[in-house]
Amino acid sequence: MVLGKVIGTVVASRKEPTLGGLTLLLVAACDANGEVTGTPVVAADAVGAGVGEVVLYASGSSARQTESTNNRPVDATIMAIVDAVELGGEQHYTK
Amino acid sequence: MVLGKVIGTVVASRKEPTLGGLTLLLVAACDANGEVTGTPVVAADAVGAGVGEVVLYASGSSARQTESTNNRPVDATIMAIVDAVELGGEQHYTK
Amino acid sequence: MVLGKVIGTVVASRKEPTLGGLTLLLVAACDANGEVTGTPVVAADAVGAGVGEVVLYASGSSARQTESTNNRPVDATIMAIVDAVELGGEQHYTK
Amino acid sequence: MVLGKVIGTVVASRKEPTLGGLTLLLVAACDANGEVTGTPVVAADAVGAGVGEVVLYASGSSARQTESTNNRPVDATIMAIVDAVELGGEQHYTK
Amino acid sequence: MVLGKVIGTVVASRKEPTLGGLTLLLVAACDANGEVTGTPVVAADAVGAGVGEVVLYASGSSARQTESTNNRPVDATIMAIVDAVELGGEQHYTK
Repeated sequence: MVLGKVIGTVVASRKEPTLGGLTLLLVAACDANGEVTGTPVVAADAVGAGVGEVVLYASGSSARQTESTNNRPVDATIMAIVDAVELGGEQHYTK
Repeated sequence: MVLGKVIGTVVASRKEPTLGGLTLLLVAACDANGEVTGTPVVAADAVGAGVGEVVLYASGSSARQTESTNNRPVDATIMAIVDAVELGGEQHYTK
Repeated sequence: MVLGKVIGTVVASRKEPTLGGLTLLLVAACDANGEVTGTPVVAADAVGAGVGEVVLYASGSSARQTESTNNRPVDATIMAIVDAVELGGEQHYTK
Repeated sequence: MVLGKVIGTVVASRKEPTLGGLTLLLVAACDANGEVTGTPVVAADAVGAGVGEVVLYASGSSARQTESTNNRPVDATIMAIVDAVELGGEQHYTK
Repeated sequence: MVLGKVIGTVVASRKEPTLGGLTLLLVAACDANGEVTGTPVVAADAVGAGVGEVVLYASGSSARQTESTNNRPVDATIMAIVDAVELGGEQHYTK
């Protein structure tokens, strides 16, 4: 997984039927302080994350290993909302 | 998935038999405003997208998790046509 | 998949037994005009492609979704020989 | 797999239930001397690694091929703690 | 697969039990002349390759499609020792 920050939402009415009911969020990779560092991906949300939160998301086939994304055509899923990141013995991001 | 813009089409008469019947589109990654930012990939189309549209496409094994691409040798599939992207509380791309 | 140009061949006599009988080609990603843009990969050939041809190749587990590559240890397979690429309403590469 | 250095830890109380019980570590790719070279990922720990150690981690579906990560939604897992790296006939990193 | 050069070895005594018995080699991507061009990965060896040899290695789930790596947590495996690379009608690397 990687650290990411939820930065937006995507609405799509015409889509693969099996995507129905999934919340699709724009998530950009971020560093240990929650600062955005990467290009955003569109991830399914398995944990009820909101815009502005720092999360962990998994990519590839691992994104389908949850009850809500099983067998669905998603390649990125938010798996956790981050409480704290510790780096080099120091607390960096905290929620 | 990532945001992408459909920028072209690819015709190939000599191909793996199981690719038959799939529409193959050139799709380039784009930003929240629909501006192209990345190198194009060739994606199968599961939703009837057209050139110029902003879409979501999935990569890897997830690209095969649709009725039309199941067990077929594709590694990128267009899964949705985007209606709107909201970023930082502001509407960016709208169809 | 991505557009690629076949630029060479690789010979390997000592190899995983299940690679036996597969043609291994050097393929470099290319743009809509057939100009090489990327670092080459070594792909199995499922369609009888030749050096100089513009092709589509799939990567990852999708590379194994053909009769000739099923369960074999390849992560890139040429799936089609490209006849034409249309981009922005204009014909670019044609065979 | 790649060589990586464990540089931190991540705490997340709200998460996919099947992530429960896994230790999540921040791991950055490193060179043969253990010097950090890449952007960190968040990996599950299958071997009891600690901050500062040089490890091997696997990515993608391979990250799920251990008893502790089987069927869990992780895409990176620490598989070994490195004792020594030899490069060009010379000992580089040693634990 | 990609062309790679074996540049070193990795020793790890504390590891995932299912990695036992596999030789782990440092392999860096190389060009058609055998010159190193990329960052090294740690690959399992399925063919008895040695340091200095030019090889082909597969990544991702394809790395597990050999008798010796089946169901093991490796994401890169050396599948062949290269005898010759021909590029643009000219012999480049030969063993």
